[in-house]
Amino acid sequence: MKKDNISDAVIRRLPRYYRQLTDLQNRGIIRISSHSLGQEMGITASQIRQDFSCFGEFGQQGYGYNVEELKAEIGHILGVDNDHHIILVGVGNLGHALLKNFAFAQNGFTVGAAFDISPAIIGTQINGIPVYSMNELDAYVRQHHVDVVVLTVPQSVAQSTADQLIASGIQGFWNFTNIELASSRPDVKFENIHFADSLLTLSYRISNH
Amino acid sequence: MKKDNISDAVIRRLPRYYRQLTDLQNRGIIRISSHSLGQEMGITASQIRQDFSCFGEFGQQGYGYNVEELKAEIGHILGVDNDHHIILVGVGNLGHALLKNFAFAQNGFTVGAAFDISPAIIGTQINGIPVYSMNELDAYVRQHHVDVVVLTVPQSVAQSTADQLIASGIQGFWNFTNIELASSRPDVKFENIHFADSLLTLSYRISNH
Repeated sequence: MKKDNISDAVIRRLPRYYRQLTDLQNRGIIRISSHSLGQEMGITASQIRQDFSCFGEFGQQGYGYNVEELKAEIGHILGVDNDHHIILVGVGNLGHALLKNFAFAQNGFTVGAAFDISPAIIGTQINGIPVYSMNELDAYVRQHHVDVVVLTVPQSVAQSTADQLIASGIQGFWNFTNIELASSRPDVKFENIHFADSLLTLSYRISNH
Repeated sequence: MKKDNISDAVIRRLPRYYRQLTDLQNRGIIRISSHSLGQEMGITASQIRQDFSCFGEFGQQGYGYNVEELKAEIGHILGVDNDHHIILVGVGNLGHALLKNFAFAQNGFTVGAAFDISPAIIGTQINGIPVYSMNELDAYVRQHHVDVVVLTVPQSVAQSTADQLIASGIQGFWNFTNIELASSRPDVKFENIHFADSLLTLSYRISNH
């Protein structure tokens, strides 16, 4: 029942629903109306019903949503239950922080390995994840099915590293380099974390209130 | 000439324009039409003209925009030239990575100090920024004008640390804790970096293409 051409705005709300439902579940809430869910999230009930209608029928008119079931449905749409295989390329401060702190498994991702050029960390493990030399990257990607690369390399090598990985068959990039990466291949997806965009949004809000 | 009630979507596009114009400037481009700017950013020329009309008149019909002037105008709207004072609370892996790598100054922010509970790092400097004890936080905030706190503390103390800072007069939070922080005071602004939302958006795209 999934519609085609679901808008970017709807897709970006799905993880927010998932997070909110996880929070409701942790608070022991069994059932919630679209009205209450909207109030918690600062969006309207009709927006929620419209968003969900892109993916089929969730819940029953007048009875609200079962929190656990809805979370499972949205998690399934997001691919949380797919067990994606991810590797991290560039173990600097940020790469290190992500390997140490980010709950990859909770979001359906298994981190297989990390790669760097620094002899000081090649051969070590971070949070149980082995760090290999960049020289081993191509071979690793060819031997393992890798869905996504976390790209935390320096800006100067961001695009060339992405090109190398795309040539090896990688189609998903979680890009922390603050460089707009490009590929002529439409099947390659880039998802960017732009720290500066976020801080400048806050700057606007505190400068203009 | 600024309109009231500018939508969140427009505000969130401003940093993207700023980033794109910085990139154009670095590439030596002097002047750009709304059509070309839109192509670079994947949005329509009419969207761009509509966004800019919220803030007054930029550029001249038929002549396009002067890149340097437009960048300065949008930077001014974003408050980049305000020299905001920022501190970082919680110097774990992520806090450390931000202090080391993030270009605060380039975005109009001066980092005055960082705070942590770990005796091992209290009294040290990271990238020239002194790390003080959490016991000194209240006194520091009362003695200095602090616009924004980067919150990189563990989740378990996120809300309590925010409450303490709000009581000391802080009104802006750049929140990396992945906890939805709340305040009853409407003058307090939270800007959240949700890593998981971003990764799950990518998960959706690679699961559903």
